[in-house]
Amino acid sequence: MCETDGPASAANNGVAGTQSRPNRSNPYQPVGDHLSNLGRFKIIESTLREGEQFANAYFDTETKIKFAKALDEFGVDYIELTSPAASEASRQDCIAICKLGLKAKILTHVRCDMRDAQMAVDTGVDGLDIVIGTSSFLREHSHGKDMAYITKTALEVIEFVKSKGLEVRFSSEDSFRSDLVDLLSLYSAVDKAGVNRVGIADTVGCASPRQVYDLVRTLRSVVSCDIETHFHNDTGCAIANAYCALEAGATHVDTSVLGIGERNGITPLGGLLARMVVTSPDYVKSKYKLHKIKEIEDMVAEAVEVNTPFNNPITGFCAFTHKAGIHAKAILNNPSTYEILNPEDFGLTRYVHFASRLTGWNAVKTRVGQLGLTMTDDQVKEVTSKIKALADVRPIAIDDADSIIRSFHLTLQENGTSAPHGTNGVAANGIST
Amino acid sequence: MCETDGPASAANNGVAGTQSRPNRSNPYQPVGDHLSNLGRFKIIESTLREGEQFANAYFDTETKIKFAKALDEFGVDYIELTSPAASEASRQDCIAICKLGLKAKILTHVRCDMRDAQMAVDTGVDGLDIVIGTSSFLREHSHGKDMAYITKTALEVIEFVKSKGLEVRFSSEDSFRSDLVDLLSLYSAVDKAGVNRVGIADTVGCASPRQVYDLVRTLRSVVSCDIETHFHNDTGCAIANAYCALEAGATHVDTSVLGIGERNGITPLGGLLARMVVTSPDYVKSKYKLHKIKEIEDMVAEAVEVNTPFNNPITGFCAFTHKAGIHAKAILNNPSTYEILNPEDFGLTRYVHFASRLTGWNAVKTRVGQLGLTMTDDQVKEVTSKIKALADVRPIAIDDADSIIRSFHLTLQENGTSAPHGTNGVAANGIST
Repeated sequence: MCETDGPASAANNGVAGTQSRPNRSNPYQPVGDHLSNLGRFKIIESTLREGEQFANAYFDTETKIKFAKALDEFGVDYIELTSPAASEASRQDCIAICKLGLKAKILTHVRCDMRDAQMAVDTGVDGLDIVIGTSSFLREHSHGKDMAYITKTALEVIEFVKSKGLEVRFSSEDSFRSDLVDLLSLYSAVDKAGVNRVGIADTVGCASPRQVYDLVRTLRSVVSCDIETHFHNDTGCAIANAYCALEAGATHVDTSVLGIGERNGITPLGGLLARMVVTSPDYVKSKYKLHKIKEIEDMVAEAVEVNTPFNNPITGFCAFTHKAGIHAKAILNNPSTYEILNPEDFGLTRYVHFASRLTGWNAVKTRVGQLGLTMTDDQVKEVTSKIKALADVRPIAIDDADSIIRSFHLTLQENGTSAPHGTNGVAANGIST
Repeated sequence: MCETDGPASAANNGVAGTQSRPNRSNPYQPVGDHLSNLGRFKIIESTLREGEQFANAYFDTETKIKFAKALDEFGVDYIELTSPAASEASRQDCIAICKLGLKAKILTHVRCDMRDAQMAVDTGVDGLDIVIGTSSFLREHSHGKDMAYITKTALEVIEFVKSKGLEVRFSSEDSFRSDLVDLLSLYSAVDKAGVNRVGIADTVGCASPRQVYDLVRTLRSVVSCDIETHFHNDTGCAIANAYCALEAGATHVDTSVLGIGERNGITPLGGLLARMVVTSPDYVKSKYKLHKIKEIEDMVAEAVEVNTPFNNPITGFCAFTHKAGIHAKAILNNPSTYEILNPEDFGLTRYVHFASRLTGWNAVKTRVGQLGLTMTDDQVKEVTSKIKALADVRPIAIDDADSIIRSFHLTLQENGTSAPHGTNGVAANGIST
């Protein structure tokens, strides 16, 4: 399922033959690693479970149904719900969502406990995500159980869920602070018992990408079932960790919309897809309705009363805004020079910022054209220097820059068509990497 | 400089002997990799260069000086400024900041061009960060120069800057889409010419963590100078990529406050330190005034008119808020169960959320104590069930929960000291990983 090198496009922006080496359609594609699932991962969308643990979250039944339908339409593979054991309304909501007849499979996330499992099975879900803490921290300070008890209980609950014909995942909590031998022994046992997925959870957000890769790769060699992964974002690595988990052979990634969840949350749905569409564009674009991502994020942001972060991947207000002059020039020539994501894939548009002192004449030239005016390059350079001079004194808006351009153009008309000279030094100097 | 295993603390929360394996003071420390710089990295703070390319940024001289002083006091190693060639005010601001006499070294970021270098040297900076695009994308669509020209110009500019006694870094732009042989040849040449640092820049935000590790590790074997790294965040991996670069032997990381920069920005200062303090607590805490991070972020957020993202590492409003009942229980026993960062390190406090249907009786018990009331555990469990029942019907505030607790306590007092029974089933059911 991995991307393969296509032949170099014949069109290729007309530059065939001018490059010393052939262009590749996507230089970031996986390089034939048969364990990698970068091009065939599945999403377990947990806004209605992990997301409910976000400080501001309160989802009534109507909201939950609205989210579930939107996520289903977006194309997620699974929708995970809060345990029916959490409260009576949680239980009723599980039942209601199971009755919607969505394409996505419905899961609920329950403690490794027979009573919770029974209650979950009775709601009509397609599967149970079972969890128990395995780190010494949690074994001591949370549930107080030892590994023998955990293994025994896990096997009982798994057998029960399987006997009901449902999917079952078994996950540790705080996997990266659990003893490796304990973890592998436990997962090997539940794999043999026929669990559908084992789960690796970075419950506290401490894991680093190469550590994730190593653990998942090791686990991949121990179990034959699918591997689900869950990454908290306390240290800002939740997207990268999910990516490395897929490289190592994980099959499923837990997400929530905008990453909402306990503390500062988990791998965000939109951010993960920003990462994955770069690596596996055909798979991601064919499977998920990417142009819906802003609408879904806005819906969830409104429900939990937060703003979409200014720097959010894809939908942050400036994600496709180019400001430095040298960027603007290249972007206007070919957007892929300074863009790895194409805003059109998400139903969005790019914006080349020209009203600042970092602007360059190429950006201003484009604006002159947008205003329906005609100038020579030297004239554009002269008006660029006027814009930069004002922007040195105070912040300027598009209107300010437009006024300068229009006023300058008027002067040109009054003076006839002669082009001013001597301003070639005003090149694009806003440099960036 | 890497962290070493200390002996297991004798105090150790009084649990010595109850664990099957010894506790380690920090299970995430580097494992004796001599190339890793996780415990000795340096920060090149670029809010006043990359940050100025943020869509909303306009920094007047007063603002720039305020930022420079705050970042210097925070403890960053370098402060990078916009090129003096960008505008006359940019040039004057370089001169003014160089005259402040800060501990941090002052850099400016200029094109690989002799005129720009001359202008930069004349401002009084401690060093120049020189950059040129090396990818075929940029060579074609931006500056139009070939590798032979790039190498020749680089060597001339480097020789000039060194002749002035200043530090010089040479960086490519868009390094991850540049030809590897071109890149290594160029860096080998500038290394031999005595450059202080070479720079790897993920200009478009396309790189993934293991790709970063591989490129930096390869480069580490080719050059003997320092290696600076610069990561854009378009696909959400900027913190993780910086971390993997340090693991591979990079020495310097570019940051900006809140990550502001071109498009959705670069590795954020606070987010990077959240990541690094987990790995190298002694180094990070001794070097950087972590309790100033919120003040610095607030200052920059105000200047560029954005809100700190709700999910920002460390300073997002809920970064230390615990909601699920099962979390609350463990957090109250021992915060490290569900926290990898200690809020006190940043002058912040944790908050255990108890006014929701995901609450558990341990969280409510703590609140009962905070209200100065006394109840048995069974009584706490009964009032917990009352709180969860109301929270099922509508979102509840702390005041609502407090009212229920006080009302229930009043009833208990009216009925004498007899404890209600039969509510043991109301345990902490808000489960999470």
